[in-house]
This record gives sequence, C-alpha cells and structure tokens, in this order.
Amino acid sequence: MNPLQIFPLTGIPEVRPGDDLAALLLGALGRANLTIEEGDVLALAQKIVSKAEGRFVRLAEVAPSPEARRIAERDGRDARLVEVVLREANEVVVASARALIVEHRSGAVCAHGGVDRSNLPGGEEAVLLLPRDADASARALREALARQTGARPAVIIADTQGRAFRRGVVGVAIGCAGVEPVADLRGTRDRAGRLLEITQVAQADELAAAASAVMGQAAEGVPAVLIRGARYRPGESPARTLFRPKAEDLFRP
Amino acid sequence: MNPLQIFPLTGIPEVRPGDDLAALLLGALGRANLTIEEGDVLALAQKIVSKAEGRFVRLAEVAPSPEARRIAERDGRDARLVEVVLREANEVVVASARALIVEHRSGAVCAHGGVDRSNLPGGEEAVLLLPRDADASARALREALARQTGARPAVIIADTQGRAFRRGVVGVAIGCAGVEPVADLRGTRDRAGRLLEITQVAQADELAAAASAVMGQAAEGVPAVLIRGARYRPGESPARTLFRPKAEDLFRP
Repeated sequence: MNPLQIFPLTGIPEVRPGDDLAALLLGALGRANLTIEEGDVLALAQKIVSKAEGRFVRLAEVAPSPEARRIAERDGRDARLVEVVLREANEVVVASARALIVEHRSGAVCAHGGVDRSNLPGGEEAVLLLPRDADASARALREALARQTGARPAVIIADTQGRAFRRGVVGVAIGCAGVEPVADLRGTRDRAGRLLEITQVAQADELAAAASAVMGQAAEGVPAVLIRGARYRPGESPARTLFRPKAEDLFRP
Repeated sequence: MNPLQIFPLTGIPEVRPGDDLAALLLGALGRANLTIEEGDVLALAQKIVSKAEGRFVRLAEVAPSPEARRIAERDGRDARLVEVVLREANEVVVASARALIVEHRSGAVCAHGGVDRSNLPGGEEAVLLLPRDADASARALREALARQTGARPAVIIADTQGRAFRRGVVGVAIGCAGVEPVADLRGTRDRAGRLLEITQVAQADELAAAASAVMGQAAEGVPAVLIRGARYRPGESPARTLFRPKAEDLFRP
C-alpha cells in the first residue's frame, strides 16, 4: 500500500481580496513540481479563502447593537467584535467571560462564529469572516482547477477549532467538494466478521486535521496542502453533513 | 519542504494477550522496507494495545450493580456492559437511550468509557477496555523500539471518538510518548507580526486523526502506521494534557 502524502504548498503571497486562488495554488504546485492527479485532495486554510473573497469587516464601521454592547460589557469584550459575531450567528451557545461560542449561519458551532481579527492590508483594524458559503467556494475552486488542469481534485476548506472536553484546537472541514464529509460504514464488517459498531467516520475532518498538522499555526505556516494517496469515499454532500443539528446534539445548553 | 508521509503497517496478525507489539511492529516495518528514523511517529490503534495487554472482560463473569441494572433497564442496554463502563468511569456525563458518555478513569470524556464489544479469540462474548495506562503503554513501546533499533520514535495510541456538535468519529490520542500533546504557541507571531490568537494546538490529536484516516475503520483497516516528516513539538507530557478538566469545561452538564 502506498503512503498517504501531504505536500505543503509554499510561497503563496499574502492573499488579497479578488485574488484568483486557483492560479495561486497552481503556481505553488508548479514550484513544487507537482501536478494534480486523480484522487488528490487540496486542503486550504479558511483564512486565504476568506481573504480572496474580501470577507473583511472594518471595525470602525460597525455600530454595536444593544445586545452586543450588553454582552461585551458583561464579558469584557470589544462590542464591535461581538456585534460582528452576532450577525454571523443563528444563536448564541455560550457567552461568558471565558468564551463566546455561537452556532454560525452554516450550522457549525464554533468560537466567535469563526470571526478572526485580521487587519486589512493597509493596517486598518478589521475582522475576517468565514467564507459566505464554504461549500460553494470549495466547489468553485474544484471546477476552476478541473478546467485548467483536466484533473478534478477534491477540495477541503479547513479551519482550526476548539472542542468540548478536550484542550487545544484541531483542523476541521468547514467546506468541501468531491469528498463525502461523513463516510457511512453501516453494514461494513471488521475482519472478525462482526458488524462495525462505529459506523460514521468524519473523514473530511480527519483529512482537515491531517492538513492542519502540516499547515501549522505559526509564522512559517503554509496556507494550503496537497493530500495524495488518501483512501476516502468521494461524494458531493456539503460540509453541513458534519454539523450536528441542535435537536440531535447532547451538549447544547 | 518534504511532504508528511503516513505509511500503513500491514500484515499484522490478530493481536492476542501477551503479544509483543514492538516485535509485531518491527516485522511490519521490515515487510514494508522501512526503518525507523529520527522524528518518526508510530501511531497504533488502541484496540491492538488493549488486546496485547489482555484487557478483555468476559461478560459472563460480570455481575451488574443495582445502578448498572437501573441504567440498562431505563435506556435499553446490556446491564453487564453498563456495569463494565461504570467500573471504568470517574463519573457519568450523559446516560440516556441515545448515548452513554462518561469521564473515563484517565480523565477523557468518551462514549462507553472506550469499552468496545470484542469477542475473545475462542468466540466467548467479551468487551475490551482501554489500556490500563495508555501513556505508560506508549512510553514502554517507545523504549522497546529504541532498545531494538537505536532510533527513538514518538508513539501515539489513537482511538476514534465522537464529538459534541459534529457528526462522525475522528481519531484522537489517548496515550503518547515523545510528542507534546498540546503545542503551546503563546508568544508566536504570524507573518504579519501579530501575536497568534490561537495558541494551543492539539498536535497529538491532529496526528492521531491523520493516522486514523489511513488506518480506516473497515475490514481492510490497518492497526498501525508510521508517520514521517511531521513537524511537531517533542515533549513528555501525558495525553491527559489533552483532557479538559471538568472545572474548565463549558459543556459538562
């Protein structure tokens, strides 16, 4: 069996609104002497997708609502940031001095609704939202790469998020195309012939975590990787398949 | 930059109590023409570690307590299985017809306290517990491999676990040696020179998820992998570092 390989795609410049991500990725692949092969997965850090889509919000232009001001004052936060988070949220899951966790518009539960501080190129104080529709972004990139190369890689847009019960962040998928987010193994038997008890594997999250291990968090981080040799179930379901609906979740207050 | 590579270690026979895991791994590495190099990480499925340690409990020998009988009757479960889970648990987190989630002795919150149905080689009905001390198991394996090869790989013992808020299971670390479970990036700056907001990365979990993506869940699954080229912070902290203490957790009922 061949190894799974994850190639860091380096040398991608700071991404600006309107940049062509497919072109940037193809440039990085070329520099690494890589061409896209059947079955490859391109994983991108959410941040570069959001930047290319211009998902910045200038904090100077944000007028906090009374609710945002109330939460910010109580929990010691920037009311403008809280306002942006609330606008991105279906509902607040936890709001305290320790954490502001919401259900993002997409249905994903995450800290700050995925909103990060990220100043604009000129230095203006801003925050960066998640892509408008990360699945659509992944699909568009997949098609652009297919048009330009003839190969149709799967695409995963990865964010790093905290978890209940465990410390530290890990990479998870917030958008994908070509890889089924959850592989349903119901009916599969193990080698003793027993039906598997664990039947649903979050394969897009496992690949996002693997990608994140290579991307890193620090100054030398790389914003995209090529994953080759992964054995995954292809599919077209949205990343939303990974987000447990509130009614099904055991840990929603 | 070199790619991260994950080599599946195949051909490992069904592991039995008392088996020498180091020998089994070295055999599999030899068949794959691999030798352990500095910086390599060996990741093992929890199941083979537990089997080698003989962590089977014969269900016929389990006498359920009144509490186990009460939970089992109410939630439609096997009282003997519930009894074994309770013996493995510091406390019950959620017990309902939908889930039985406990804080395992180790401090990890997980479904069924990591207890899986896994019949004994003769076919006798049994369950398999997590390793007695998965960090100690990882350390012992690391030292055995070091003695026999001269190289000292990091070792991760990986389980697949469900999550709050997200569907499907992913690989996580339940024991490790030589890899710092949580990489603390406080004080690190991104390439714009800003201090990173996300400062703690669960790198052992990311590597466990990557390993799990290669191990698979199904009949053709491989019980161990060699990870080469990972950029991780070495360290000797136990996997417990990953388990958020109850007082620090926002989602413990």
